[in-house]
Amino acid sequence: MPRKMQPGSLSALACAVLLLCAASSRAASPPPPAAHRPPTAAEVLASSTAADWRALDPQNTLYLELASGRVVIELAPQFAPNHVANVLALSRGRYFDGLAIVRAQDNYVVQWGDPDNKRPVGTAHRTLPAEFERPLRGLSITRLPDPDTYAAEVGFVEDFPVAADPATGRAWLVHCYGMVGAGRDNDVDSGGGTELYVVIGQAPRHLDRNVTLLGRVLSGMERLSVMPRGTGPLGRYEHVEQYVPLTSMRVAADVPPAQRTNLEVLRTDTPAFAAYLEARRNRHEEWFKVPAGHVDVCNVPLPVRPVAAAATAK
Amino acid sequence: MPRKMQPGSLSALACAVLLLCAASSRAASPPPPAAHRPPTAAEVLASSTAADWRALDPQNTLYLELASGRVVIELAPQFAPNHVANVLALSRGRYFDGLAIVRAQDNYVVQWGDPDNKRPVGTAHRTLPAEFERPLRGLSITRLPDPDTYAAEVGFVEDFPVAADPATGRAWLVHCYGMVGAGRDNDVDSGGGTELYVVIGQAPRHLDRNVTLLGRVLSGMERLSVMPRGTGPLGRYEHVEQYVPLTSMRVAADVPPAQRTNLEVLRTDTPAFAAYLEARRNRHEEWFKVPAGHVDVCNVPLPVRPVAAAATAK
Repeated sequence: MPRKMQPGSLSALACAVLLLCAASSRAASPPPPAAHRPPTAAEVLASSTAADWRALDPQNTLYLELASGRVVIELAPQFAPNHVANVLALSRGRYFDGLAIVRAQDNYVVQWGDPDNKRPVGTAHRTLPAEFERPLRGLSITRLPDPDTYAAEVGFVEDFPVAADPATGRAWLVHCYGMVGAGRDNDVDSGGGTELYVVIGQAPRHLDRNVTLLGRVLSGMERLSVMPRGTGPLGRYEHVEQYVPLTSMRVAADVPPAQRTNLEVLRTDTPAFAAYLEARRNRHEEWFKVPAGHVDVCNVPLPVRPVAAAATAK
Repeated sequence: MPRKMQPGSLSALACAVLLLCAASSRAASPPPPAAHRPPTAAEVLASSTAADWRALDPQNTLYLELASGRVVIELAPQFAPNHVANVLALSRGRYFDGLAIVRAQDNYVVQWGDPDNKRPVGTAHRTLPAEFERPLRGLSITRLPDPDTYAAEVGFVEDFPVAADPATGRAWLVHCYGMVGAGRDNDVDSGGGTELYVVIGQAPRHLDRNVTLLGRVLSGMERLSVMPRGTGPLGRYEHVEQYVPLTSMRVAADVPPAQRTNLEVLRTDTPAFAAYLEARRNRHEEWFKVPAGHVDVCNVPLPVRPVAAAATAK
C-alpha cells in the first residue's frame, strides 16, 4: 500500500521521463478511461497507435557514452543545419572520445568538451556562424493555447520545443530541460559544437536566441543531471581529477544495429498528441484536485519509448 | 583565457545560486556599471546596502544534515503556519534523524521521510489539513510585469515565489526549483510534513494548489539535486541500500551559534530588488546579444549570501 508517494502519480510524467515506465505502461494495458472524465496522459499513450509514433533516424542521433551508460541525443537539423553537420563530423572524427565533462552548474547546465582546447577538429570546423533562429515559414508548429512569458507563440515542431514571433517571421528552439546547445565565447560566431551543454534545471529562457541549440536528450538525462556540481565560476570543475571522462560520442548509424538504442517519439502533429497535451494541461489522475488549466512549453515531457522489438529487425 | 565557458556569464545567476560567488563578488568590488547601459545583476548586488538584506530568523530555519553537508531551508509560516509548526515540532522531536532520502525522480523531486512509516511523531501531528492557498489580503506582493502561463499574477512575498488570483482573492506559493513541500496521499489532508520533497527540475506548476509548500532551500541544493535517480515508479529507490541517510534535521535556533550557517537574503520589497529583477529581465552582460525582455517567476534566482562576520557575533 503506497503512501505519500506524491507529488505526482504513476502517470505520463513518470512514463515520459522514465523510459522504462512508458514501455511498461504499454505492456501492462492500464484500465480504460472512466466514462465520466477525459483520459489521463497514461491512458492516451496506452491507446495510441503505431502510426502516432516516429522512430529516430540513426543518421540524426548521437550516443554519448559515459562510464555510467549511454545518453541518446536527437539532433535538430531543421533549426541548426550547420551545427548539426559539424557535430556529426566531429563525432565521426572521434573528436569527443576521451574528452570530459568540465562543468556542472546547479539548476543550469552540464557541459563537455576539450579542457585544453588543443584537439584537432579534422575535417570539421572549430567555429561556425550562429544559428540562433530561422524563418518561421516552412515550419508546421503544433501551438500551445496558453500564454508564454517570453514569446508570442510556443509549441512543438516534431519533438522539439519552439518559440515563434509572427511579427518578425522568425522561429527558434527553446531552452527546456534536456535541450543541447553549442557553447560559445562572447563572439556570437565563436561556437560550432566543440563544446556542448545540456540544460539540467529550470528552463533558462534568457538564453533563447543567444546561443545555438541543436538537439535534445531523449534518454539518459539522469546520467548527466547527477554530475557533482563544480565549485569554480559557472560551475566549472576546478581540478583535473574532477573531470568526468567521455568514453565516446558516436552517430547511431555508425553503431552496429544490435548495439543501438532504438527509440520512438510520439508525433506532435497527431490527435494523440493533442489529447496528451490536454491531459497535461488538466490532470485527471485521482491525486490531482485542482487542474492547472494551462501548461508551459517546457513542462510537457515529450513521450519516448523503445521501438517494439519486431520493428527494430531491419 | 577562458573560452566557451558559456552559456551565461560570471553574473548574478552564478552569484545567487553559488553562494560562494555572491560572497566573493561582494569582496572583489567589480568595476562600476558602464554609463551607457543599465547595471547588471552583479553590479546591482555589489552596490546594495546592508538595509537591502534580511538575515534569516533561526526560529524559522531548518538545517537538514547529510553526510555530504548541510542543506539550509527557510520556512514560510505566512503561507503554511500549521505545516511549519509541525515540521518544527517533528525536527525538535528528532523525528527525521536517521531517516532517509527515499525518492529521486529526474527533473521533478527528491523526497525524504520514513520508508517504514513506523516512527512515532511524538507531540507533532502525523497529518494536517491542507494549506494549499491563503487569502491574498494581508500580503504585500512584489509583482512581476510579465505574463505567467499559469496564474493571473505572480511575484514575491519576502523571498518566496507566489501566485495570486485577484478575482478569487487567493494567493499561493509556487513550485519553483528548490521549493520544499509536504508529500501526501490522494486525500488532500493526508500530508503534514512527515515526508518532505524539494523540486529539482523544471517548475512543476501543475502541483500548485495541489500540495502544501512550506519553505525553500537557500543553500545546499547541490547536495540534493545530484542524488542518484531512483528506478522505481516515481523515482522511488527500489532497494534499501540505495536510501541516502539523513544525519539529522534541526531548527537553526537549537544549534549552537558557532555552528550555524548565517545567511541573509535580498529583500524583495526594495529598489535594489527592483533593479535586480530588471537586470534579470534584460541581461546586459557582454555575452548576451538579445535581452529576453521578460522573466519567469521561477527564473529569478533570489540572492542569498553569508551574513558579514561582524553581524553574526550576537
